[in-house]
Amino acid sequence: MKTIRYPKKKDWSALTLRPAKKTVALQALVSKVFANIQREGDKAVMKYSKQFDSCAVVSTKVSRSEITQASKAVTPDLKAAIELAKNNITKFHAAQRETTQRIETTKGVTCWRESRGIERVGIYIPGGTAPLFSTVLMLGIPAKLAGCKEIVLCTPPNAEGNIHPAILYAAQLVGVTQIFKIGGIQAIGAMTFGTATVPRVDKLFGPGNQYVTAAKQLAQQQGVAIDMPAGPSEVLIIADQQSVPKFVAADLLSQAEHGSDSQVILLSDDAEVIAATQAALAQQTKALSRNKIVTQALKNSKAIQLKSIAECLNFSNAYAPEHLILAVKDSANYIKEIGNAGSVFLGNYSCESAGDYASGTNHTLPTNGYARNYSGVSVDSFVKKITFQEVTAKGLQNIGPAIEQMAAAEQLDAHKNAVSIRLAALAKPKKN
Amino acid sequence: MKTIRYPKKKDWSALTLRPAKKTVALQALVSKVFANIQREGDKAVMKYSKQFDSCAVVSTKVSRSEITQASKAVTPDLKAAIELAKNNITKFHAAQRETTQRIETTKGVTCWRESRGIERVGIYIPGGTAPLFSTVLMLGIPAKLAGCKEIVLCTPPNAEGNIHPAILYAAQLVGVTQIFKIGGIQAIGAMTFGTATVPRVDKLFGPGNQYVTAAKQLAQQQGVAIDMPAGPSEVLIIADQQSVPKFVAADLLSQAEHGSDSQVILLSDDAEVIAATQAALAQQTKALSRNKIVTQALKNSKAIQLKSIAECLNFSNAYAPEHLILAVKDSANYIKEIGNAGSVFLGNYSCESAGDYASGTNHTLPTNGYARNYSGVSVDSFVKKITFQEVTAKGLQNIGPAIEQMAAAEQLDAHKNAVSIRLAALAKPKKN
Repeated sequence: MKTIRYPKKKDWSALTLRPAKKTVALQALVSKVFANIQREGDKAVMKYSKQFDSCAVVSTKVSRSEITQASKAVTPDLKAAIELAKNNITKFHAAQRETTQRIETTKGVTCWRESRGIERVGIYIPGGTAPLFSTVLMLGIPAKLAGCKEIVLCTPPNAEGNIHPAILYAAQLVGVTQIFKIGGIQAIGAMTFGTATVPRVDKLFGPGNQYVTAAKQLAQQQGVAIDMPAGPSEVLIIADQQSVPKFVAADLLSQAEHGSDSQVILLSDDAEVIAATQAALAQQTKALSRNKIVTQALKNSKAIQLKSIAECLNFSNAYAPEHLILAVKDSANYIKEIGNAGSVFLGNYSCESAGDYASGTNHTLPTNGYARNYSGVSVDSFVKKITFQEVTAKGLQNIGPAIEQMAAAEQLDAHKNAVSIRLAALAKPKKN
Repeated sequence: MKTIRYPKKKDWSALTLRPAKKTVALQALVSKVFANIQREGDKAVMKYSKQFDSCAVVSTKVSRSEITQASKAVTPDLKAAIELAKNNITKFHAAQRETTQRIETTKGVTCWRESRGIERVGIYIPGGTAPLFSTVLMLGIPAKLAGCKEIVLCTPPNAEGNIHPAILYAAQLVGVTQIFKIGGIQAIGAMTFGTATVPRVDKLFGPGNQYVTAAKQLAQQQGVAIDMPAGPSEVLIIADQQSVPKFVAADLLSQAEHGSDSQVILLSDDAEVIAATQAALAQQTKALSRNKIVTQALKNSKAIQLKSIAECLNFSNAYAPEHLILAVKDSANYIKEIGNAGSVFLGNYSCESAGDYASGTNHTLPTNGYARNYSGVSVDSFVKKITFQEVTAKGLQNIGPAIEQMAAAEQLDAHKNAVSIRLAALAKPKKN
């Protein structure tokens, strides 16, 4: 990890750039796969699963007995851990549900907002070596709390046609309604168009590689909403003399192990903290199973010395990190200065892993600077908020003339007339 | 407007289709304009304003004195109407601001969520005959309530290089920070890349024609968020014997006058209601200044007779209307049945114009069936919700073992180590 001391303000913008993405032209491939799935449904899905994932399952739908067996294969310790995480995630997300608040804006004019779960949502869980059952919790729990009626999950099976038991266990635990052994572009395509076996969904969630990302983009053009734009994971840590360098190093590494394109940033007002963290990084990296990935990710990464913690906060807001750890004295004092971040971790014991798994906050967060303009996943992501209004006759008499004025000024006669015709009717049968 | 009686369930899906959009290939044009604006900034913006809008203003930025003059040009009656609308919109939207709710998910683990205004937002207001100052209120008020620091507004000037006074008046009233006389693709391009005079924004809002829509789509690929996908405006009215056919007709027409591609749908369980509304439509249309547009829009529109109001609700949920008017007896009883809609109007006096201008709800709503998976604009649209967590040493001891279990099962060693290294440090200096 490169150390940079007191960069000039004009160089900040370059320092906040993420590692260049390999943008392969995948649009043509995704379009072709989508067109075939739209035309041939399950048959095309099966074909691509075989072609891309060397996987030829007889049935893509996971059966009840497979789920029961998976449940048996998960150790009691892991089940207890998942249960603890589920409870915390549920507590935190349940508080995000909105209570209806009726506002009488003018006498006789009552407006309010009610949330409705998006009817059918799709969750994509990537395959690969690590079974990301924690993401099943992070997406399934708020979906259920939001009142989504159908929660569809797609994930690629391994070469033997199986899904990791922890994924199946977590899925049934949080109330996923259907699970399919489908991965990649064909999973997103199946949920976008629907097939005889896979339902068409209204919104797609979940991480994935560049193929899945490209497929989600195309799904969006087909009218399916998506959670947020994707990008490699990242953490920014602000550390001062009160931080513990070996903790800081451990947090940087926990982010760096996600992938060789991950990025970690350390900001400090103190050269010693940076030096000690660099030393701890070197030492801890050796022991990690994913040390090759970590070493690569650290090459994209930077330790930057700035003049003060206040300046570190400014830099952080410009960077807009997915995860922000404040390992500084009186960290809570800086909260109001934080403008752009996905999730914030305060103090020496709030490690990023806590939020990744079990503290209760969601780990699906905006990367790549999108913390400037996107929020992480929450119950909000799974609902539509519908506005309602009830205007009484008296209410319309109160606001009607203003509507007539405005509609006339906008030259929208029919808008005006919808009010005038009612006010005239009300004026006619004067009762008192 | 065509009348359809008791369509079969299998034909519903075809009936919920919107009029086919003229999808012109605009991507190439938008890409070219964007590339030039990115390279040449204001110079390119001026060039395209001249080329596309026959407009050659010397300075795109609206001056203080222009705003002062505009304010004088707005009649006191219209000012009072705008003031009433502003108050109601403010009251309704202010209630959407979230109060921080700290949740202790486990002893020593506290999580909460705080909203931050998106720093720089851009509002696009289309030109044309009707000066849409109401949209300035609908976007500017929640932006201000959300705490957005910069609110940039772009709108095309007329041939004389002026903006309608009501737009300028509304913009200064709600706290827009900068106004530019730029329209179309070049406006969206300027706000996407930023120029010497126009700031780059983080999120773009507002309606527009197919050029603006295509430009907003491309802006999204450049990392700028957008409010929602665009489409022609629409209303669905469910009316029974208790409705007033001339009111229903007036509401259908107020939607139909938006454009020849607008769509209005009437659902009823009663043939008489449909017949009476059709008669009122024919009669009222004649008197409207926009009767050509209206006549065209009514050709896209349908009156559908169904067996019951419950069945009308089912159809409406399948259609997912932008605006839903329930002109039925005891309309409030049906609220819980409404799954998909942008904004709902209850009873005979809650006309759509009320919500379009002055009741307090927002008129920027999901069209084209997007009410299935998108919400209308609200304060939420202008904020990021950042999650925070503070885990104490004791808190980490409580949830740490679960995190270690889960991280190990996901084969993410470094995630596990970030916890283990802290738990080990806490275990060492045992004090009691």
